[in-house]
Amino acid sequence: MTIKLYYASGACSFVPHSMLEIAGATFEPMTVKLHKNEQNSPEYKAINPRGQVPVLVDGDQVITQIVAIINYIDAKFPEAGFIPKDPLARAKFVETLAWMNNTVHPTFTHIFMPFKYSDDAAAQEAMKGYNKGVYRQLMGELQGLVQKAKTEGRDWLGGVHCGPLDTYALTLLRWGTIAGINPEDFPELWAFVQRVAQVPAVARAMEREKLQLSLYKP
Amino acid sequence: MTIKLYYASGACSFVPHSMLEIAGATFEPMTVKLHKNEQNSPEYKAINPRGQVPVLVDGDQVITQIVAIINYIDAKFPEAGFIPKDPLARAKFVETLAWMNNTVHPTFTHIFMPFKYSDDAAAQEAMKGYNKGVYRQLMGELQGLVQKAKTEGRDWLGGVHCGPLDTYALTLLRWGTIAGINPEDFPELWAFVQRVAQVPAVARAMEREKLQLSLYKP
Repeated sequence: MTIKLYYASGACSFVPHSMLEIAGATFEPMTVKLHKNEQNSPEYKAINPRGQVPVLVDGDQVITQIVAIINYIDAKFPEAGFIPKDPLARAKFVETLAWMNNTVHPTFTHIFMPFKYSDDAAAQEAMKGYNKGVYRQLMGELQGLVQKAKTEGRDWLGGVHCGPLDTYALTLLRWGTIAGINPEDFPELWAFVQRVAQVPAVARAMEREKLQLSLYKP
Repeated sequence: MTIKLYYASGACSFVPHSMLEIAGATFEPMTVKLHKNEQNSPEYKAINPRGQVPVLVDGDQVITQIVAIINYIDAKFPEAGFIPKDPLARAKFVETLAWMNNTVHPTFTHIFMPFKYSDDAAAQEAMKGYNKGVYRQLMGELQGLVQKAKTEGRDWLGGVHCGPLDTYALTLLRWGTIAGINPEDFPELWAFVQRVAQVPAVARAMEREKLQLSLYKP
């Protein structure tokens, strides 16, 4: 039974998408077109009632939530060594993953989809502006993680290989460029993300999703 | 070296707090008074620069982020069986945990601390009102998980024992009562949460934090 991954171009589903490419997995990439609102179609809601990507389907099992999917792919492809086995190293990995997922990611949602948090147009505009400032701070914090890895002699954020923390960092910086942040303002983060994008398996996922690394317009 | 847990009364740190009680761990409970802004004191920011609870300190190691701390406590006290070992069961556990952490939890933050998302007073009011409606929907979804567990013959949300998903559910419903939601509107969830609160280890954590289960005022 082949694994199916439901993803949307440029969404955080890029992270499990890249993992499957890195692991050399056989999988069916199932594209969900957000601009056509396919995530809210009855067909898709039958798979994930919350209408979100990513979703991983393995046989008759359906797994939602990126953090859960990353755990599952790690367990399914142990030879890829995505998440460290040592309890402390694992906790530090999950700490960064959880922060990306519960802090950086939703800050972008306030800029990109403010209607999720208020139906008032003025409130939406206020949130957009405010959270652009917050997002810029978070990009600084993310760059700090890249610098810390370098100081500790690690090439990647999560371990010895390019993995989910690295492709999540790529995704989050790319979203920053959509929010009007010049990636050159964070030179070490930008250099890191360009290196992640050159990993052949990551490049394959980018090509399938037709992603440009920066959408920044001066 | 004793484990230290930094927690704030009634915050999501109640979840690892209860886990340590359930596991019968020896630990130092370190209270952080949010109403005195202790989370932003230089002393606390030296431990967690993000100024958040919970923080777990084990020897010279500092772990932040509730999802990471739950993973770490699970690995440290395997006999408590907090997180299922089977990869699929583990993924389903993490799926619910991640949803509580990245969806239900921040929806309450929009009601309780809207200043985190905008510095505009009118936008804050708009967000508060809108997210009360969203929170009510999410309580319905949470009750659905309790019903599903019952249908599947499980006494608890995450496994065979009372664990982090159950005490997170308690915390989230309790927050709902602060947001003006009558717990009686969700009778199966309310009955479940009352059962969780009666587990002796959970009751000990509640007593230390001086928690009332419902703060609802008609």
